[in-house]
Amino acid sequence: MNIFDDSDSCRNANPLQYIETVTFPDPLVLHNQQELLEVTVVYETYGTLNERKDNAVLICHAFSGDSHVASHSDADDPGWWEILVGPGKYIDTNKYFVICPNVLGGCRGTTGPDSINPQTGQRYGMDFPDISIEDMVEVQRKLVEDHLGIQRLLAVVGGSLGGVMTLVWGTRFPDKVASCVAIASGAHLTSQSLAFDIVARNAILSDPHFYQGQYYDKGTTPATGLAIARMLAHITYLSLESMRKKFDSDRNHARQIKTSFETKFSVGSYLAHQGDKFVERFDANSYLTISMALDKFELGENREKLIHSLRKSMCRWLFVSFTSDWLYPPFQSQELVDAALAGDKRICYCNVNSDCGHDAFLLENELEIYGNLIRSFLFHTYQEICPRNLFGSQSLEISEDETHFFPTKRKHRIDYDRILELIPAKTKILDLGCGKGDLLLRLKERGHERLVGLEIEEQLILKCIEKGLDVIHADLDKGLHSFFDKQFDFVVLSKTLQSVRNVELVLEEMLRVGTRAIVSFPNFGFQKFREELQMGRAPQTDPRPGRKWFNTNDVRFLTIADFEDFCKEKGYRIHRQVALNTELGVIVDSDPNLNADVAIVILSR
Amino acid sequence: MNIFDDSDSCRNANPLQYIETVTFPDPLVLHNQQELLEVTVVYETYGTLNERKDNAVLICHAFSGDSHVASHSDADDPGWWEILVGPGKYIDTNKYFVICPNVLGGCRGTTGPDSINPQTGQRYGMDFPDISIEDMVEVQRKLVEDHLGIQRLLAVVGGSLGGVMTLVWGTRFPDKVASCVAIASGAHLTSQSLAFDIVARNAILSDPHFYQGQYYDKGTTPATGLAIARMLAHITYLSLESMRKKFDSDRNHARQIKTSFETKFSVGSYLAHQGDKFVERFDANSYLTISMALDKFELGENREKLIHSLRKSMCRWLFVSFTSDWLYPPFQSQELVDAALAGDKRICYCNVNSDCGHDAFLLENELEIYGNLIRSFLFHTYQEICPRNLFGSQSLEISEDETHFFPTKRKHRIDYDRILELIPAKTKILDLGCGKGDLLLRLKERGHERLVGLEIEEQLILKCIEKGLDVIHADLDKGLHSFFDKQFDFVVLSKTLQSVRNVELVLEEMLRVGTRAIVSFPNFGFQKFREELQMGRAPQTDPRPGRKWFNTNDVRFLTIADFEDFCKEKGYRIHRQVALNTELGVIVDSDPNLNADVAIVILSR
Repeated sequence: MNIFDDSDSCRNANPLQYIETVTFPDPLVLHNQQELLEVTVVYETYGTLNERKDNAVLICHAFSGDSHVASHSDADDPGWWEILVGPGKYIDTNKYFVICPNVLGGCRGTTGPDSINPQTGQRYGMDFPDISIEDMVEVQRKLVEDHLGIQRLLAVVGGSLGGVMTLVWGTRFPDKVASCVAIASGAHLTSQSLAFDIVARNAILSDPHFYQGQYYDKGTTPATGLAIARMLAHITYLSLESMRKKFDSDRNHARQIKTSFETKFSVGSYLAHQGDKFVERFDANSYLTISMALDKFELGENREKLIHSLRKSMCRWLFVSFTSDWLYPPFQSQELVDAALAGDKRICYCNVNSDCGHDAFLLENELEIYGNLIRSFLFHTYQEICPRNLFGSQSLEISEDETHFFPTKRKHRIDYDRILELIPAKTKILDLGCGKGDLLLRLKERGHERLVGLEIEEQLILKCIEKGLDVIHADLDKGLHSFFDKQFDFVVLSKTLQSVRNVELVLEEMLRVGTRAIVSFPNFGFQKFREELQMGRAPQTDPRPGRKWFNTNDVRFLTIADFEDFCKEKGYRIHRQVALNTELGVIVDSDPNLNADVAIVILSR
Repeated sequence: MNIFDDSDSCRNANPLQYIETVTFPDPLVLHNQQELLEVTVVYETYGTLNERKDNAVLICHAFSGDSHVASHSDADDPGWWEILVGPGKYIDTNKYFVICPNVLGGCRGTTGPDSINPQTGQRYGMDFPDISIEDMVEVQRKLVEDHLGIQRLLAVVGGSLGGVMTLVWGTRFPDKVASCVAIASGAHLTSQSLAFDIVARNAILSDPHFYQGQYYDKGTTPATGLAIARMLAHITYLSLESMRKKFDSDRNHARQIKTSFETKFSVGSYLAHQGDKFVERFDANSYLTISMALDKFELGENREKLIHSLRKSMCRWLFVSFTSDWLYPPFQSQELVDAALAGDKRICYCNVNSDCGHDAFLLENELEIYGNLIRSFLFHTYQEICPRNLFGSQSLEISEDETHFFPTKRKHRIDYDRILELIPAKTKILDLGCGKGDLLLRLKERGHERLVGLEIEEQLILKCIEKGLDVIHADLDKGLHSFFDKQFDFVVLSKTLQSVRNVELVLEEMLRVGTRAIVSFPNFGFQKFREELQMGRAPQTDPRPGRKWFNTNDVRFLTIADFEDFCKEKGYRIHRQVALNTELGVIVDSDPNLNADVAIVILSR
């Protein structure tokens, strides 16, 4: 293990070779009406902008990143997202034109506190105005629209600060982005994350070499304060578990490095190295400027305001969070998801299982999942906005699972056939526990106003997104609070009721969110099951091989009659009921509670 | 909400009134063979030491605490654990003689870096030796044993640093403590928590007013560095959720306070206040000394070493963690629990559900649970070591729950009668899902070598501890990894199998940990259930009123025949099987799969 992996400090041997620069002579009017003269933006581009200018992807870097998102050639140094961006990669520069600018307020070329103030001929220092994330995004818009002449970006993609910038793009410039990929971000920082930023800034501001920010001509910098800020930030980028893996085994074996900081423990020498290295390439005033902009950012301080902000957006959204991220914890992405859904926006969401903390989006560990999510999301978004310009098509065969409870050679989902018959065309459908999206894909091919799936398994979510479906990572047992009343015409719970614990909650929620609910479930009253119990064995409803009473996912057992009783008790109205014998592949009309192994019920309140 | 609650800085109006002091003239030999001359200890006591000197409870304070654990009179200032310690309180000073000393290395009276070095006549400063937690505890031992003449403490109690000190007491002086209560502690700091300490120390060490620790005569102190260290520590004492509750609603409304630190956000003004206030009462060298001692502390860096360390202990342990504590996360208390159990120690453990983070043990929010855990644990420990000296007795009636599945007036647990018959006297028993401990209490009254319960519900754990039982907070579905092979003669799973998801794992583990397993479960093959299904309704095995297929905790349904098949398939040997009809209150001999509603099975591998 090399604890001194410097993934974020890769520098180009000949940095100027690929760097492009544009200076806007007109003043930039900031959120507080202050003006910035002569804003310069440094950016790098990859791939080719097509004639219609509809294949452009803007990538927004994180706090300490820059325009060098990937290498431009084999001889070039790797970029900070080298694993994701490049020819044939997840963001494929053979297909897309990638643009990555350094942010306003930064210190990697774009105008920031270390730039010369044209009005004074001196560096700005602390006189650099108090900018906002919105100001940073406005500068990006000028670059994209005014300078590059791109009317609408195919996508804006970013993680952390970059993810926050995608939120601004999507809500502020709804007609200028077809899709946004917001990774490891949130509507605002948690009070905990905010507190760390404040301590970091206090360390910089109280460094005796800070000189009120005018240290540029002093021959010294607030390096100690900045290094301490960076050490602190580094802890928040990792996770409890990733730190354990990185440092526990050689806790007391510090690396011998030249530093003024404590190096007693291995994690201490790592932090000292990270701190010392950072001050060589980053400006303390930029740190203060960007961190304050991020700390003040607020997309919506409560659910209502967040819904209001996101309501303006018109793009397709992909939200990605990581389970061990505690800088922007997953619940913050879920708040965005909830608010976007409440505004009936088209979104996808996956909470990627990871030990790597906030930095997971920069690492290879979970690349296969988040990389493929982004790849498929971009592919289908592009297909949607520009169907004739496909670079190829993905195979999207509908797979045929077994419906029946008794292994036969029948491979056709007759329950889906019946559900499809029950659902009128063009209606709005929510599919709970949508699996790999087979039912939704059949509906999609038929044409529907709105199709949304909920699924709990990461791999199945990826399969849905690969089919171009809108799917949300969610646990049914926690309810459907994201959705508003009667948001859908039909809410479908297909062969999932038997594995739901909170049956009452889920059905209540289905009938709140949908005008009608469609529920299908295995009928425990089926003749074969009765016979099994008569023979002294508990009936086995789980058709998968090897699944028995002790290892099935099924935890609820009910007959059609039980379900009817339940609906009566709850005051639910049963509109129609279709009973199937899936072994014979037929609809059952006579005594379904005895003769059917699956029931499909349409109900409303 | 008063965000400036100063719970940890309560000072006595006349602090010297109750403070006692002892100076040991002999040198204290430290862990590294260095010597400290003339160690002075400041301590406070409460209540009366009885003639046998067997009612003494030592309380160890946390990082920034001191000897003033509670007020001595109504006129006195409240202490840092006022809510817990006092006449009639959870640690009842009417019963117990409470001792609370300030730690070695501190700055509240006991010898520390700000004390005069008798060899130089100057303050120690950075010349204060590199002490360990073990050194701090050795000073406490001298106070307790050499000075106060107490051969064995009834208990050592502490949280955080104090909890770590209890670990040292229990393992280093096994014959000098009857019990230890270790709250919010661990065998060592996580790498994440260690990292925060390192950044905090770097802030102090790089403060230009630190002067290599010899700042005492400079007329200034490294107040900025110390304040930054304290701000950082404060964040780790709270939780994501408690910070949200404290600061989210008025995020941008900072309190106007006089400070040199940033006060832009409410959390910023809070941290600035905490930092500024702390430097008035705490010495930077003490901060460095104590934090380094804590950081270097290691009870066992892996499971084997931890088992080895804890194996030496002879006391009864109570471990308490808090779900939202991320400074000493619950898994660290669980590591201690696991290692102590592997050494066959007598322990109790509860992971208290709390939003309050690490500081929960100082707050009233969860006091009712952790306070009562401590109260009952102390009561029963004292009763065990000194049965004739009870201050009263708690009522310990055995409650009689319903065994049967059909409501009748029978209130006697006949399944317990049968299980008791099946278990030979004096054997070692582990009861999984022990509930409020009724079966264990019956066994206890009969006399057994070892009785341990596992339970998932906090309130039921408290009920067990109130009965004087040893109970561990655990989730059966995660297995029994704490225990070694064949640690018990019998492992009992009484009427719990039907709500276990990982049936295979639990049974495998039972047969690994116990020579025999006793499993009781409702028989789905019972005649009445068969009839119910014949009538088209799914049988309901849950006897509690209002519980039906959709809201029962039962998730596994099996007949006696199914269980026999399962045992055959797994190669388990069934030694004996007792079938009951709990409605009639009789043992069933004829066709139990049809006539019994409950089966009790003894098996082995």
